[in-house]
Amino acid sequence: MKYEILKTCGRAKRAHMETVHGTIETPVFMNVATVGAIKGAVSTEDLDEIGTQVALSNTYHLHVRPGDRLIHDMGGLHAFMSWKKPVLTDSGGFQVFSLAGIRKIREEGVIFQSHIDGHRIFMGPEESMQIQSNLGSTIAMAFDECPPALAERSYIEPSVARTTRWLIRCKAEMERLNTLPDTVNREQLLFGINQGGIIEDLRISHAKEISELDLPGYAVGGLAVGETHEEMYHILDETVPYLPKNKPTYLMGVGTPANIIEGVDRGIDFFDCVYPTRNGRHGNAYTHFGKLNLMNARYERDSRPLEEGCRCPACRRYSRAYIRHLLKAKEMLGMRLLVLHNLYYYNHLMEEIRDALDAGTWREYKASALERLNSGEI
Amino acid sequence: MKYEILKTCGRAKRAHMETVHGTIETPVFMNVATVGAIKGAVSTEDLDEIGTQVALSNTYHLHVRPGDRLIHDMGGLHAFMSWKKPVLTDSGGFQVFSLAGIRKIREEGVIFQSHIDGHRIFMGPEESMQIQSNLGSTIAMAFDECPPALAERSYIEPSVARTTRWLIRCKAEMERLNTLPDTVNREQLLFGINQGGIIEDLRISHAKEISELDLPGYAVGGLAVGETHEEMYHILDETVPYLPKNKPTYLMGVGTPANIIEGVDRGIDFFDCVYPTRNGRHGNAYTHFGKLNLMNARYERDSRPLEEGCRCPACRRYSRAYIRHLLKAKEMLGMRLLVLHNLYYYNHLMEEIRDALDAGTWREYKASALERLNSGEI
Repeated sequence: MKYEILKTCGRAKRAHMETVHGTIETPVFMNVATVGAIKGAVSTEDLDEIGTQVALSNTYHLHVRPGDRLIHDMGGLHAFMSWKKPVLTDSGGFQVFSLAGIRKIREEGVIFQSHIDGHRIFMGPEESMQIQSNLGSTIAMAFDECPPALAERSYIEPSVARTTRWLIRCKAEMERLNTLPDTVNREQLLFGINQGGIIEDLRISHAKEISELDLPGYAVGGLAVGETHEEMYHILDETVPYLPKNKPTYLMGVGTPANIIEGVDRGIDFFDCVYPTRNGRHGNAYTHFGKLNLMNARYERDSRPLEEGCRCPACRRYSRAYIRHLLKAKEMLGMRLLVLHNLYYYNHLMEEIRDALDAGTWREYKASALERLNSGEI
Repeated sequence: MKYEILKTCGRAKRAHMETVHGTIETPVFMNVATVGAIKGAVSTEDLDEIGTQVALSNTYHLHVRPGDRLIHDMGGLHAFMSWKKPVLTDSGGFQVFSLAGIRKIREEGVIFQSHIDGHRIFMGPEESMQIQSNLGSTIAMAFDECPPALAERSYIEPSVARTTRWLIRCKAEMERLNTLPDTVNREQLLFGINQGGIIEDLRISHAKEISELDLPGYAVGGLAVGETHEEMYHILDETVPYLPKNKPTYLMGVGTPANIIEGVDRGIDFFDCVYPTRNGRHGNAYTHFGKLNLMNARYERDSRPLEEGCRCPACRRYSRAYIRHLLKAKEMLGMRLLVLHNLYYYNHLMEEIRDALDAGTWREYKASALERLNSGEI
């Protein structure tokens, strides 16, 4: 793995990262393929067309179905889903702490129930690394606890300490797995995750601790889970400077186009979020002037594309009126076209951001992009 | 419109038909796009890739939503759904008699209730032609009554007589509409429909009557609605010879790959059926050796494509195991890949049929294709 910063502007970084599955140009938005597929009937062939660089899949979901051993035996997640470019897998931690049934947290790990058939599953740092190793993703995420954003210090402090101990175990296990002959991707990279809620000194001390482990990359986790945007930006302002600048930095689960622009400005390289897919499935299209809801009657006879000038597969060919009709008729194609457009929009937004950083016009770009997004001129 | 027979073998015809929306090579299978879209998130861009020649849309569905006036004002169905090639629209009759609420049949037409909001709609031959004219399809179908397949002579005889009277009104109305300046497609073609249940002499006398109207094409309707395959083939044997050979002949709503091969052998040019889309959405893939159900556990670790050697977008890239996983996880992409494969299969089957007719090997092709389909070697 090689990570090279090409340009900076303040804390904003423009970089590229070489992996066994190809180069990632950052800042980048990863497209969420929860169970090894993008929701909305979008194929990996479509992803190539809409400029996706990295797919993000969920360890917990793939562990319970179809099973990470099956995916290992089919040649790993890349072969299984027919996607050659980089894949990042989360650790399963977030789903365990948010989706799964009654759980017990112990030093070893977590006991929880499958959301599919209710069977008891144990997952700790070693198990998460083993599952992600079976999936053979390009980047594996550390197994951490994601505490509620607004939890008290008395809850967060011991949780963060355990997350550090778990990270040390993740690192050791990943190193071991990467030497085994049966491992799908023996160059799998481990990213550590910074936690600490919105308590600045906990975030900072944790960032310092995990930075010492010299991992290939670091994430800021546990944000966008209930705090305000301003609190999130403040935590990034305080924390990111204590993570290694010469390594990729990933802001997990974030966010709106404006959140992403603000994140880049604070030194973030990697983003992911379900908004473009989820909002697309609910009839919303992203544009440079904000979102539009296709269910609105004003689009009934609107022959324009979702966004004028957009080159996505939906806008190249279909009108707002047609897509609205499909949504009203509950035709799957309506959702698919919106998801294609929204992912293209996000991927293209990142390209604009990279172009502005390359051109040395980041500050101007940021100001005008945020202004347009808030203009509501649609 | 120009229809030219290129080859024959017994009653089987290989022809091409020139329309304002391009040439149709027959025998052809029309792909069902009920509300102006193929079910399963398949776009018109996909249709170009899987070799679709003609899309078939439903007049009744488009009339109730989004409304045929809206589609007219958006430039017609071709512009609305972004599809340049031929479109056939049914008359709405079949849906009125099968889907819609309590109805009253009178000489003028039918009163029925919308399946969407229950409002009363009147549709007769003139209304059906006006709606189809608003849609601007390449081929419009006559407004007929489709009686239950096994209805008695006492029901069918007056029904067929009314269908003939309705056809005369359809023809007059279509001629009038095709002269109006505001008409989307002033070269819209009207196909008449033969009815008569499975009562031979009624089928034959009706075929003779409607042939005299010298329409651009004729369909055999009211089959595949409850009778056996043998009864259907027998009716085709008896009836098709009384329809004009030098015009396209369309067997409505049929059918399985074997039904299509038997239909071609009896002089049929045009087919349509919901099987490839509906079966795809239910987890079934068509192959030259019969259907396979992807939900079957035997495919859990099957790394082969749906059919070896198939060049469809699903088989070029994805395994049975992956598609099965998507279906189990209720990911829309699973349905989409199966629908793409099945439509490709049907479109490609028609290409094989045309190739065999062109090459003068129709009898051999028919025998070996039917044998393979029944072999179950999957």
